[in-house]
Amino acid sequence: MSQSIELVEVGMRDGFQSIHSIIPTGSKIAIMEALYAAGIRRFEATSFVNPAAVPQLADAVEIMRAASTFAGLDAQALVPTARQAERALTAGVRHIAFVFSVSPAHNQSNVRRSPTESIDELGRIIAASPAHIRLRINVATAFDCPYLGRVSMDNTLACVERVIELAPHAEIALCDTTGRVTPDHVGQLFQRAQERFPGVRWAFHAHDTYGFGIANVHAAWMNGIKAFDASIAGLGGCPFAPGATGNVASEDVVWLFNSMGIRTGIEVDPLLVVARDLAALPDAVTGGRIREAMAARCRGPAIQALSPG
Amino acid sequence: MSQSIELVEVGMRDGFQSIHSIIPTGSKIAIMEALYAAGIRRFEATSFVNPAAVPQLADAVEIMRAASTFAGLDAQALVPTARQAERALTAGVRHIAFVFSVSPAHNQSNVRRSPTESIDELGRIIAASPAHIRLRINVATAFDCPYLGRVSMDNTLACVERVIELAPHAEIALCDTTGRVTPDHVGQLFQRAQERFPGVRWAFHAHDTYGFGIANVHAAWMNGIKAFDASIAGLGGCPFAPGATGNVASEDVVWLFNSMGIRTGIEVDPLLVVARDLAALPDAVTGGRIREAMAARCRGPAIQALSPG
Repeated sequence: MSQSIELVEVGMRDGFQSIHSIIPTGSKIAIMEALYAAGIRRFEATSFVNPAAVPQLADAVEIMRAASTFAGLDAQALVPTARQAERALTAGVRHIAFVFSVSPAHNQSNVRRSPTESIDELGRIIAASPAHIRLRINVATAFDCPYLGRVSMDNTLACVERVIELAPHAEIALCDTTGRVTPDHVGQLFQRAQERFPGVRWAFHAHDTYGFGIANVHAAWMNGIKAFDASIAGLGGCPFAPGATGNVASEDVVWLFNSMGIRTGIEVDPLLVVARDLAALPDAVTGGRIREAMAARCRGPAIQALSPG
Repeated sequence: MSQSIELVEVGMRDGFQSIHSIIPTGSKIAIMEALYAAGIRRFEATSFVNPAAVPQLADAVEIMRAASTFAGLDAQALVPTARQAERALTAGVRHIAFVFSVSPAHNQSNVRRSPTESIDELGRIIAASPAHIRLRINVATAFDCPYLGRVSMDNTLACVERVIELAPHAEIALCDTTGRVTPDHVGQLFQRAQERFPGVRWAFHAHDTYGFGIANVHAAWMNGIKAFDASIAGLGGCPFAPGATGNVASEDVVWLFNSMGIRTGIEVDPLLVVARDLAALPDAVTGGRIREAMAARCRGPAIQALSPG
């Protein structure tokens, strides 16, 4: 009867890639170790991209090698193209994450391809992957696009259908790229997706830019979703609003589910320790809410001001 | 088919009372006017308390007089005791809000009475009130107590039952006093309350200290609640965690419902202008999430970092 969710820690990819000062590989592995010790068993650990474009992730091979030494750890590496997938597979990566956007404008800006070209690229990745390779597909702008606004559910589901035809066993993450999504929209799209494509494994990638991250995660959960991307300390920021927060924070998501009696396998306190260290990194844009509230000291009497006069 | 909610702006009471520097009465009325212009039609405008204990609210009579000049404005004044209710009624207040805590420890700290003594006090207030006086009852620590932790639903419902016996026509607000409540708990308590006491008007008073305010408001809405307390700019802070945020922000709640196509009658943009002014007040502890995100400028390309290498 006990229910559980799976948290996918994306801070080492989505968070680190936005930090300009290079974090030493050893420090990254120490962070992964601390998060593993807190109970995290799944990471989007890095991305195979052009090292000249993203020097922070130039150590993708070393990170994935380190990840493979943790017992029971499932580490996925993000790849945007078949060429990068080849690099990842050569490096021994066993879980590949592919990303494309439903929105043509966003996909063009992100990977200089149309959504159709990206889905073709996915086909080439699948063709090149041995059967044991696991696949996660991140459907960006599944709800809302920074350039075009609200994305129609029909449009998203049509893209998802083409992806499922190519990769019926992939896990599919619907991503709130802008953080502007509301819980009703999250619930409705996941409901429709599950009705139309039964048997698919789903995940939700929430942003917290407008403070709706936890509400949206809860709405996805209420609609049957059990895998959630989150970033320790909310690391990553919002690429569309400099200085604003981006990914929903892992510690907030874990605290939500732990408080509701839903098993995460993760302890909050050690997450908070890591989150505080990360918040101190140069260039780090962090988010998350429980860190500050838990750091604040209880001072006792409530609304003393209301004492009867 | 169009659905709507009612927002109760509590910043002038819950927010102002925590600010030590006295805000001139004229400034308070100007703020009320700006919020009214944005579409807010219901306020908890002040509290009748000992002016020596809360100098900030010593102008309760003037504030309620000013409120009565706005067409269609419903302004309630909080009173903790029968003695203060008498002052309020004498001043012409037509909508009284009474507060007590389910938790004996919290009620003792707050109004130096047991919950039973407070409910007796409510009986005296009702006896002294003419029939046209509207009544709102704020049930503090309905979910969770800063001193005793989680409050059992049975305990809260037993208190609510005694209140409903005394005041069957009152609106009853279940208050998340600590901000530690999770959406499942909010939904369950409101479900049980509505089943057990059909026909009662309910409201939800959310705090956002741990970032769960919007998730909890949405959970209450999903369970049939249509009246929500909120504070402009999240003004008020958390009395138990100095420096941490308290009340859920009005602009966040309005943005949530407006975005979901649920009518609030309130525009977000003018709220944001008032919220920015209030955030600049000396001593103001503010919260809320959309203000910063909306102030941040869109800078274009998304995760450019992922450009194919």
